[in-house]
Amino acid sequence: MEVRKVLLKEDEIPRQWYNILADIKINPPLGPDGNPVKPEDLAPVFPMNLIEQEMSDQRWIDIPDEVLRVLTIWRPSPLVRALSLEKALKTPARIYFKNESVSPPGSHKPNTAVPQAYYNKVFGIKKMTTETGAGQWGSALSFACCQFGLECKVYMVRVSFDQKPYRKAMMESWGGRCVASPSAETKAGRDALERDPNTPGSLGIAISEAIEAAVSDTSGQTRYSLGSVLNHVMLHQTIMGLEAKKQLDLIGEYPDIVIGCAGGGSNFAGIAFPFVCDKINGRQVEIYPVEPAACPTLTRAPFVYDHGDTARYTPLLPMHSLGHAFVPPPFHAGGLRYHGMAPTVSQLAMEGIIAPRSVTQLSAYEAGVLVARSEGHIPAPETTHALACAVEEAHKAREEGKEKVILVNWSGHGLLDLGAYERYFAHELQDYPLDEAVMAESVKVFANHPRPAALKSR
Amino acid sequence: MEVRKVLLKEDEIPRQWYNILADIKINPPLGPDGNPVKPEDLAPVFPMNLIEQEMSDQRWIDIPDEVLRVLTIWRPSPLVRALSLEKALKTPARIYFKNESVSPPGSHKPNTAVPQAYYNKVFGIKKMTTETGAGQWGSALSFACCQFGLECKVYMVRVSFDQKPYRKAMMESWGGRCVASPSAETKAGRDALERDPNTPGSLGIAISEAIEAAVSDTSGQTRYSLGSVLNHVMLHQTIMGLEAKKQLDLIGEYPDIVIGCAGGGSNFAGIAFPFVCDKINGRQVEIYPVEPAACPTLTRAPFVYDHGDTARYTPLLPMHSLGHAFVPPPFHAGGLRYHGMAPTVSQLAMEGIIAPRSVTQLSAYEAGVLVARSEGHIPAPETTHALACAVEEAHKAREEGKEKVILVNWSGHGLLDLGAYERYFAHELQDYPLDEAVMAESVKVFANHPRPAALKSR
Repeated sequence: MEVRKVLLKEDEIPRQWYNILADIKINPPLGPDGNPVKPEDLAPVFPMNLIEQEMSDQRWIDIPDEVLRVLTIWRPSPLVRALSLEKALKTPARIYFKNESVSPPGSHKPNTAVPQAYYNKVFGIKKMTTETGAGQWGSALSFACCQFGLECKVYMVRVSFDQKPYRKAMMESWGGRCVASPSAETKAGRDALERDPNTPGSLGIAISEAIEAAVSDTSGQTRYSLGSVLNHVMLHQTIMGLEAKKQLDLIGEYPDIVIGCAGGGSNFAGIAFPFVCDKINGRQVEIYPVEPAACPTLTRAPFVYDHGDTARYTPLLPMHSLGHAFVPPPFHAGGLRYHGMAPTVSQLAMEGIIAPRSVTQLSAYEAGVLVARSEGHIPAPETTHALACAVEEAHKAREEGKEKVILVNWSGHGLLDLGAYERYFAHELQDYPLDEAVMAESVKVFANHPRPAALKSR
Repeated sequence: MEVRKVLLKEDEIPRQWYNILADIKINPPLGPDGNPVKPEDLAPVFPMNLIEQEMSDQRWIDIPDEVLRVLTIWRPSPLVRALSLEKALKTPARIYFKNESVSPPGSHKPNTAVPQAYYNKVFGIKKMTTETGAGQWGSALSFACCQFGLECKVYMVRVSFDQKPYRKAMMESWGGRCVASPSAETKAGRDALERDPNTPGSLGIAISEAIEAAVSDTSGQTRYSLGSVLNHVMLHQTIMGLEAKKQLDLIGEYPDIVIGCAGGGSNFAGIAFPFVCDKINGRQVEIYPVEPAACPTLTRAPFVYDHGDTARYTPLLPMHSLGHAFVPPPFHAGGLRYHGMAPTVSQLAMEGIIAPRSVTQLSAYEAGVLVARSEGHIPAPETTHALACAVEEAHKAREEGKEKVILVNWSGHGLLDLGAYERYFAHELQDYPLDEAVMAESVKVFANHPRPAALKSR
């Protein structure tokens, strides 16, 4: 009987994160004055120990024991040989998925939520605030705060809050408090409600509320937390790629292709960066971030300086961006509905080290169902984008008659997204070709922004 | 760092199921004529290979390779040391949970759904029918049928069908067809609708529909499937206890206490029977099936001959029963809302080999939230009953100052039951003390039934 799962023992868990900033250069974030942001500028928002990590270029950073102790609730996560999918596709490719759906919140998000909660705790913080769209990130931070005895407050975009009551219950199960955004609890929320009492909310407003709630706590014991985009988030997520590398090594494999879905970039970065490091050092490996065709940051948008949020509270970040006011069409993959992309991932795409791909909603769900019917596990809508790319590559391998090794990141399960699957089966989902006029309008916001410099890592 | 998870390699998966009928005696099921049921009587309902298994008293039965191949999608399942829970309880007890929530449908149910689908396939069957209440069993059978290329049709009690649309979507993700029961597709369903067009449905009606759909297929290629109660279901579930025993053995442990929740009995039997075998052979171990106080089959109901379903299609089974027409109050633990109990489990309780316990709804949810906030994973409502008992025993161990080893079966996750948690947090759940008058009325159905003989296993 062929073995499906490659498991690591708990004492084989990586003890250090890999920091890609040791191997590539990125443009600095810029403050309102147009100058690079200094650590103290960020101090009201994040604890200093995380700001130091954000700005570090040390290649390996130790994972604290207290963090490892919580991560081992579900880590090391399984690497799974997709034997049944390979059979269904009649491909000579060997497909492996790194199963991040086994965490309590059901996705890769707690890989960074746990260390973020830990560093906040160590810094003396008592309460964390954040925003959440579909709910994965808010759930992960609630879980992490619960583990370290911190309060957690999540501003959830109203339309998701109403459509996905299970997410709120999940956060409450871990003691987190989740309110619909815009709320009456912040000035940003009240302003938004005054403009439109029936607003469905947006990630932009929710971020504004969460930041305001953190910086306006006069006790100084509250901080804000972001679940993607930033360097320290990418850093924490590399534990996935480092584990996968060990697991493949155990069975004498090395990937020809590495695939991860990309919204803000953390799922992709986490699986890919350890292999990007190899590639920069001359090893042959194809690396594909996969994004929705309806929100094609890496594949269609320019590389610019832009704000991370609609309300322009954040510094200007050097990234591929559709414009901070871009509102994606209503496709069902909440974690991929972001206008920008992590600066590190953007830089790698600019330099051609990684090769971005995009997938339409219907082909993503088609791949998701194919995989659920062969491998059993039901993937998250975000994950289906990576799977669609893997299926495409497996077909290509069959046509070429090549025994390629494909590593794909299974970012989460779809159990709290079955409503979207229901709509797919009822033929109620559609594709959203990018509206060129909307995009042309959206990118106008960059007109007065500074331009990032062209940098070269290899 | 203390290790949380005890993992087995795939090649360490048990190759045989343990059949408790080699070690205990039970009264035979009786047909309409009052005589023991013969294999051919069951042939229109089940394939003959499963009927043979149902009636076998061979101690060890080989698990076919094709079944193992599918089980390894998630098995062997982890045995988890509940370090954080122990710390929260300040108990000297060592608590281990066998995590069955890692299967694609999220519970222990596929442990029997997979072999049942396999044996049906081998017997030449093309389609399986079943009923489901809360949806765990229907999901598991849909998943299993998908793995073996069988059609699957699930009759889901209407009130659950309407309240839990995610379960239907899950079944559809695996190609299963799920209809609300009563449906217009069967005579039993049409009759029920004629009596009351707005009926919420019941497990009894759904069973009738599923059996009718199976036996009325004139091609002879459809069979019915039951997810608990029967001997072959208990047999298939013993893989959990056999794995747990190996895992405990690896770290030099043996349980003082084994705990599983009990509705029809399969979750409890699966973890407990391999230890029951030891106990029959003289080893000291306490074994607790835990049921809801609002449906107290083992703890309050008489040991009688009763039908397995409301419509009295099934043979008379020797079991603890609240009466086949008993309708439990609306507590939230769908898998524990059954009027009877597996004959094997009932026999063990009768003989005092196992010691049944009951738990109220509120104390079950309280334990569930305590565990979610320490161990991270959110348990199914059914599982919370076992956890409440484990917490009680851990407290007792602290009071007694004893380092007891507690093994508890984590039957499934609560991710599709977060609506019930939401109601718990909103203080909308209540306890349901057993109504003595209702019970007195309910057990009148036994008046004319034969009485099971007193049997002794040790």
